[in-house]
Amino acid sequence: MSSLRYTRALAAGCAALRGVARQQVRQSCNTCTNRRCLSLAAAAQQQARTKISQTPANAVMSATRTSDSLHLVFGDGTSSDLPYVWLRDNCQCAQCFSEGALGRKLLMQDLDLNVKPALISESERGVTVEWTDGHYSEFTGEWLYDRAFTPTSRTRRRHQFAYTREPWGADHRLPEYDYERMMKDDKVLLDWLITMEKKGSAMVKNAPDRDIAGPELIEHIAYVKPSHYGPHSPVINRPESNNVAFTNAKLGMHNDLAQYEHMPGIIFIHCLKQHIGTGGESVIADGLLAAEILRKSNPDAFHVLTATDAYFWDKGRANYSWEMPEFYKISRHPILTLDSNNDVCRVSLNNAVRDSFLDLPAHKVKSFYAAMKLFNDILYDNSLVFKMDSGDIMTLDNVRCLHGREGYEALSERHIESSYLDWDEARCRRRRLQEKLGANDRK
Amino acid sequence: MSSLRYTRALAAGCAALRGVARQQVRQSCNTCTNRRCLSLAAAAQQQARTKISQTPANAVMSATRTSDSLHLVFGDGTSSDLPYVWLRDNCQCAQCFSEGALGRKLLMQDLDLNVKPALISESERGVTVEWTDGHYSEFTGEWLYDRAFTPTSRTRRRHQFAYTREPWGADHRLPEYDYERMMKDDKVLLDWLITMEKKGSAMVKNAPDRDIAGPELIEHIAYVKPSHYGPHSPVINRPESNNVAFTNAKLGMHNDLAQYEHMPGIIFIHCLKQHIGTGGESVIADGLLAAEILRKSNPDAFHVLTATDAYFWDKGRANYSWEMPEFYKISRHPILTLDSNNDVCRVSLNNAVRDSFLDLPAHKVKSFYAAMKLFNDILYDNSLVFKMDSGDIMTLDNVRCLHGREGYEALSERHIESSYLDWDEARCRRRRLQEKLGANDRK
Repeated sequence: MSSLRYTRALAAGCAALRGVARQQVRQSCNTCTNRRCLSLAAAAQQQARTKISQTPANAVMSATRTSDSLHLVFGDGTSSDLPYVWLRDNCQCAQCFSEGALGRKLLMQDLDLNVKPALISESERGVTVEWTDGHYSEFTGEWLYDRAFTPTSRTRRRHQFAYTREPWGADHRLPEYDYERMMKDDKVLLDWLITMEKKGSAMVKNAPDRDIAGPELIEHIAYVKPSHYGPHSPVINRPESNNVAFTNAKLGMHNDLAQYEHMPGIIFIHCLKQHIGTGGESVIADGLLAAEILRKSNPDAFHVLTATDAYFWDKGRANYSWEMPEFYKISRHPILTLDSNNDVCRVSLNNAVRDSFLDLPAHKVKSFYAAMKLFNDILYDNSLVFKMDSGDIMTLDNVRCLHGREGYEALSERHIESSYLDWDEARCRRRRLQEKLGANDRK
Repeated sequence: MSSLRYTRALAAGCAALRGVARQQVRQSCNTCTNRRCLSLAAAAQQQARTKISQTPANAVMSATRTSDSLHLVFGDGTSSDLPYVWLRDNCQCAQCFSEGALGRKLLMQDLDLNVKPALISESERGVTVEWTDGHYSEFTGEWLYDRAFTPTSRTRRRHQFAYTREPWGADHRLPEYDYERMMKDDKVLLDWLITMEKKGSAMVKNAPDRDIAGPELIEHIAYVKPSHYGPHSPVINRPESNNVAFTNAKLGMHNDLAQYEHMPGIIFIHCLKQHIGTGGESVIADGLLAAEILRKSNPDAFHVLTATDAYFWDKGRANYSWEMPEFYKISRHPILTLDSNNDVCRVSLNNAVRDSFLDLPAHKVKSFYAAMKLFNDILYDNSLVFKMDSGDIMTLDNVRCLHGREGYEALSERHIESSYLDWDEARCRRRRLQEKLGANDRK
C-alpha cells in the first residue's frame, strides 16, 4: 500500500482500512523495544508522520468533499477546509485570473455563492475541479497549501503583510545603521526595514551634511510622503515660525502631522548640527508599549482615548518657497485608533496641534484630559533621553513612537531636518528585497 | 437697570432681583392686548430675549463658577459649562500659546487636571481668569462662544472639518464644472470642493487634450498623491499590463488602490479618447448609500463587512518609466471601515486586487462572500451607467464612491488617465478658499 494512499485513509478516518492499518502498525512495532507501551493509535500516528515526511509538505494527500468545502490533507499532515465559493473565486485559469497582472478578472456578479463541484480529482501535484456549470479550475498543491485556512498559513501571510511589533521601554537602545551602507547594500536596507516594522525605531549614522540627505535616503527606498511643509522641513528657530516645532521651545513627545488624516508612516529626523551646551536633547517613547500598559492598568482611560475623537489643526503661511503658500488643516480622530482586531494601529498625540475645539459634552471633558495626561505620564515613565550627534538620522514609526525635545537657546545653530516615508511604500520595499535576496516569500 | 445685568440676574436665577424683574415685566406688559394671557414667567422670558437680541450673540452675559467648570451665558441666550482644565489648557497668553504659529506651547506635563480659578471677572468682551497658581488667562467672548460645548458650536466645527455627506442613488446626475473655470475662478473651484465633500462625485468638462491635464488640475488645488503607478496612469489596453484595469476587460465597480493602507481620497478619471461603438461605458455608485442600505436591511452582513479584514495585493513591474520599477503591495482592512462614531469612513471593494489569502477560519468564509456579494448587488441596483465624452474628467470620492467600466474591443483607441488627490489637501484648500472668499469660518 502506497504511503500516499495510506496517509489519505488515515486522515479521512476510513473504517474499511483499519485492519490493514493495524497490521502495518504491528509490523512497524516489531522494532520497538517496548512494544506494549506504544498504543495502536500512537503507533499509527507515528508511522503516518514518518511516511508523510517523505513527501513534500504541500503535496495534496487527500481531498474529501463536504457540503460547502473541499477538505484537503497536505503532505505535512496539516489539513484545511477550502470553501467551494473561495476556490471558484480564486480560479487561476486565464479567463478568471490575469497571470500577467496578477489580478482577478472574475467579476463578483458572476460568482455563484452556492457553486458546487461536479468532479474533483487530486494528485500530489494539486487539485482539479470541474464545476457543475462546466468550468474547470486547477490549483497546485503549493498554491493551496500557502492559502489553506490553517493557523500556519494565516500567520505566514500576516507576516508578509507586516511584522509583529515588539514593544520597548526605557532600556531600549536604538539599533544603528550606516547611511552609506543602507544606500549601497540591500541587505542592510532590508535589515533596517524589518527593524522599523518590529521596533519602530532606529538610528542611521554618518549621514551626509546635506539638508536633503533624509529625502535622498527616502527616495532610495521609495518616495517622500509630501505634506504642506514640502519634502523636508528645517527644524530650526525660524523667524515668524508657522509651527511651534520650528522654534527653540521645549516640545512634549508627539506624533508628527497629527493634523493629517493620513499621518506620515515613518519620520526621518536628521540632525545636521546639534546644539552645543545644555538643551536640544531628544526624548522618545514607544506609544504601543504605553497604550498596552494603559489598556491593562486603566481600561476606562484606554477606552476614552480610543472612543473620543480629538481635532488637530494647523493653519498658517509658508516660511519657505517649497512650503504650500497657505494651509488650513483640520483632522479628527482618536488619540489611539484601534483596528478591527482591537490592536492599536495609530497613536496620535500632539499637544501643539491639538485643537481647542472639542466635540464633546462638557461633562466628558475632564475624563478625556485625565486619560491623555495618564497616557502622557506613562510615555515619559518609559522614555529614553539622549542627544543626537550631527550626522544622525533618527527614524521612527510615526504612528507608533513619539518624539520630543528639550528647549535650547534662541541663537543656537542647532539644525534638524525632518521628512517622511509612508508605511505602504516601506513594507512594499521590504517585500521586494525579501524576494530579491531569496527570503522565503512566495507570491 | 442695564440689559446686561438684568439678563445676568435672570440667567443666574437671582432671587434678590425678582421684585424688580416683576415690576419691569409689568411695565412691558402694558402694551399687551391681552395682558392676562401672558404669564409673568413667559413675559420675563420674552423681555430677556428682546434685551439679549440687542447684544452680540457671543457677548458673555454671565459667568458662574461650579466645582469643575465655569458656566457661561452668552448674548444669544445659549449657555455652556467650560471645564477649568480645558480653559487652562487653552490659555491664549504668549507663554502658553504661539499666536504666530497658532499652536499650543503649554506642555501636557505642566497641565494640572484639578486647576481652579482664584478669581474670575467677566464683561461683554470676555472672561479673565486668575488661577490659584497666579497664572492669568484671558478669553474673548468670540473665542469662548465659538468653542462652547453647545450643539451649535460643536456642529459648526464638525462642518469646518468636513461637510456632511449626502448619499445618492440611481437618479443622481453628476454636477458639472468647466475645467478652465475651475482653474481661473476660485468660486467655481470652491463649489466643486464642497460638492465633492457632499456628493463625492462631479464631472469636469472641457479638459485639455493632454495626458497630464488631471495632474495639472490637482496641482492647482494642492499636489498629486503619489503611488507606485506614478503621478498619472494611462488606462489603456497595455501590452503586458501590470494591472487588470489597464486592459480592455470589463471591470466591476471598485475603489482604486485598495492595496494601499492609505487609499487615495479623490480619483480624477480623465477621458482623453472614448471608445467608439459599444463598450467602455462607465458605471458608478455611492458606496455610502449602499452601505447604509446594507446596515438597515441586513445588519449581520454589514457587521461581517466592517469586522472582517480582507487583504488586497498588487505585485508587478513598471510598464512606464514613471512607474516604480517593481512593487509588491499588501494592505489589510475591512471592506467597510467605521470611524469612532460608527459612520462608514472608507469603502474598499476591489475584486481585481482582493487577495486570495484570507485570514479567516474556513467556516466564516462563505458568509464573508455572501456579504460582499450582497453589497455588490446593492451597489449595482443603485448605480448609474453612462459614457464619458472625450475631455471629461470624472472626479469621485475614492473611499466612498465606486467606479467600473464595460469591456471594449482590444484594438480601441480608448484612452483614460487617472490620478489622485488626498482628502487632507482637498479639505485644506476648501477652508482656505472659504476664508479668502469671505465665508463665515473663524479661526
